[in-house]
Amino acid sequence: MTGSELTNIRSPRVKAARRLTKRAFRDRDRAFLAEGPQAVREALELPGVVVELFTTGEAEARHPELVAAAAAADVPVFRASGEVMAELAQTVTPQGLLAVCRFVHVELSSAVPYPEPGVEAARLVAVLAHVRDPGNAGTVVRVADAAGADAVLFTDASVDPYNGKCVRASAGSLFHVPVATGVTAARAAEHLKAQGMRVLAADGAGTVTLDDVDLSGPTAWIFGNEAWGLPEDILALADDVVRVPIYGRAESLNLATAAAVCLYASARAQREK
Amino acid sequence: MTGSELTNIRSPRVKAARRLTKRAFRDRDRAFLAEGPQAVREALELPGVVVELFTTGEAEARHPELVAAAAAADVPVFRASGEVMAELAQTVTPQGLLAVCRFVHVELSSAVPYPEPGVEAARLVAVLAHVRDPGNAGTVVRVADAAGADAVLFTDASVDPYNGKCVRASAGSLFHVPVATGVTAARAAEHLKAQGMRVLAADGAGTVTLDDVDLSGPTAWIFGNEAWGLPEDILALADDVVRVPIYGRAESLNLATAAAVCLYASARAQREK
Repeated sequence: MTGSELTNIRSPRVKAARRLTKRAFRDRDRAFLAEGPQAVREALELPGVVVELFTTGEAEARHPELVAAAAAADVPVFRASGEVMAELAQTVTPQGLLAVCRFVHVELSSAVPYPEPGVEAARLVAVLAHVRDPGNAGTVVRVADAAGADAVLFTDASVDPYNGKCVRASAGSLFHVPVATGVTAARAAEHLKAQGMRVLAADGAGTVTLDDVDLSGPTAWIFGNEAWGLPEDILALADDVVRVPIYGRAESLNLATAAAVCLYASARAQREK
Repeated sequence: MTGSELTNIRSPRVKAARRLTKRAFRDRDRAFLAEGPQAVREALELPGVVVELFTTGEAEARHPELVAAAAAADVPVFRASGEVMAELAQTVTPQGLLAVCRFVHVELSSAVPYPEPGVEAARLVAVLAHVRDPGNAGTVVRVADAAGADAVLFTDASVDPYNGKCVRASAGSLFHVPVATGVTAARAAEHLKAQGMRVLAADGAGTVTLDDVDLSGPTAWIFGNEAWGLPEDILALADDVVRVPIYGRAESLNLATAAAVCLYASARAQREK
C-alpha cells in the first residue's frame, strides 16, 4: 500500500483519476479507468498497462491476490475510503477496485497485420462504424472476443472505446482482443481487403441473408448504429450487405444481438470448413 | 382529443398513470406504460390493449396516424404538456407518446397450447428464469420474436415483463410474442416437455456445446441470470445443459447475446431440417 488512506475527494490524486471519466482528459493523459475485479485482473495480466490501483479495504480483503499482483508489478496501490471510491467509480455500486490504465489500442497494421512468416492472417474482424452507444460497443467487443475474433476496429465516427460504460460492458475483453481506434471506415475496409478478407456490412436492409452467404473464408463484419443502420458510403465499401433474417414480427435486432448472431455464424462456418 | 391539455403533474389522471411505473400499482390495475411511437403503434394493433394515450402536440404532429388510430378505436387521447410528459415518461428524452396498456400476458396453456386440430405445436420457446435485469429481459423478448419463437415464459423468479425498461428493450415485441408470466420453472419445464419439446438450459458450465446438440426438433431454451448462471434445481429440469462455445478469451457472453446465439442456432437448424 502506498501512503495512507485517501479520504479527501479533492486531493490531487483523486482529482487526476476522476477527470479520466472525460474523454478530453483520457486523450491528453492517454489513460483510462477500469472498474471492478474482473477488469482489474485482466488489465494486470498485460505488463505495463496498470499505472495505479485504487482499492477499498473491503475489496482488498476480498481480492488480496489482485492487490498482491499489482504490488509485485510495482504498481502503486492506494487505499481509498468508500467516499473516494464512490467519487471515482462510475457505477452505482462500485466494487471497490479501480485501475488507472494506459491506452491499450494498437495501430491498424498491428491489429490486423500483413501476413508474413510467423504471423497468422486474420480470419475474423469486427468493425464498429458509427456505433455511438458505449454499452453496445463494449458488448460487441465482448462477443467478438468470445467468437474468437482477431481484432476489433473502432472507426473515427464511433464511440471512444475507453468510455467507462464501454470498458465495463466489454467485461475484460478490451484487454484481450487487439483494438484499433480512430481509423476511417474507408481505410479500414481497404486494409482488410488487402489482407484477403471479405468485408460484409450487417444491415437490416441487406440484400442477402446470413443463411445465404458463404462465411467459411476470412471475414470482416462492419456493424453500424442501431437506430439508423449504416450510411450509404459505408455500405458501398462492403463486398456484400447482409441482413440477419427476421423469422417473427420484430422489426430488427439490436446491435449487440445482431453482432452476436453474425460473429458466431462466422466462427461456426470457419470451423466447419 | 379528450378535454384540454394536461399541464398539471398533480392532476389525478397524470398521477394514476405515473404510479404505473411501480409494480405494485401495475399489478393492482393490471396495466402498464408503453413509451414511444414504435411501442404505441404495436400496442394499438392489438384490439382492447390501449386504455388511454398521452401525446404532446409535437408528437401528434409527427405521428398523426397513431393519434387517429387511437381515436378510431375509441381510445381516449390526452394532450399533455412537455412537463407532464417528462413526469410520465421514464426515458431521459421522452418521445412524446405514451400509452396506458392492459396486461397482455396469457396463461401458460395459451402461450404454449396443447396441440390439437387447428393449433400448431410450438417449435421454439424461450424461458426466462431468474433474469433480474429488465433491459436484458426485454432484449431477449425482442430476439426471441426475431428468431420466430412461439412464446416467451417469465418464471416467478424473473423480472416483471411490464417494467418500463423491459417494455422499451423489447421494442414492441412484447406485443407480438405470446408471453406468460409468474409460472415456476418446474411447471414451465413440465408443460413444455408434455408438448414434446426438448428443454435445454443455456449455461456457461454446460456439458455440451451449442455445436454438438441437435436443434432440429421442438426446443425450449431456459436462460438464467447473467452473473450467476442457472441454479442447480433449474439445471436439473433440463434435458441438456448447453454452453455457447467461447473461442477467444472472454469469460462468458452476456445474457442477451448468448440468447441470440442459441435462439438463432435453433431457428436455423429447424429450417435446415
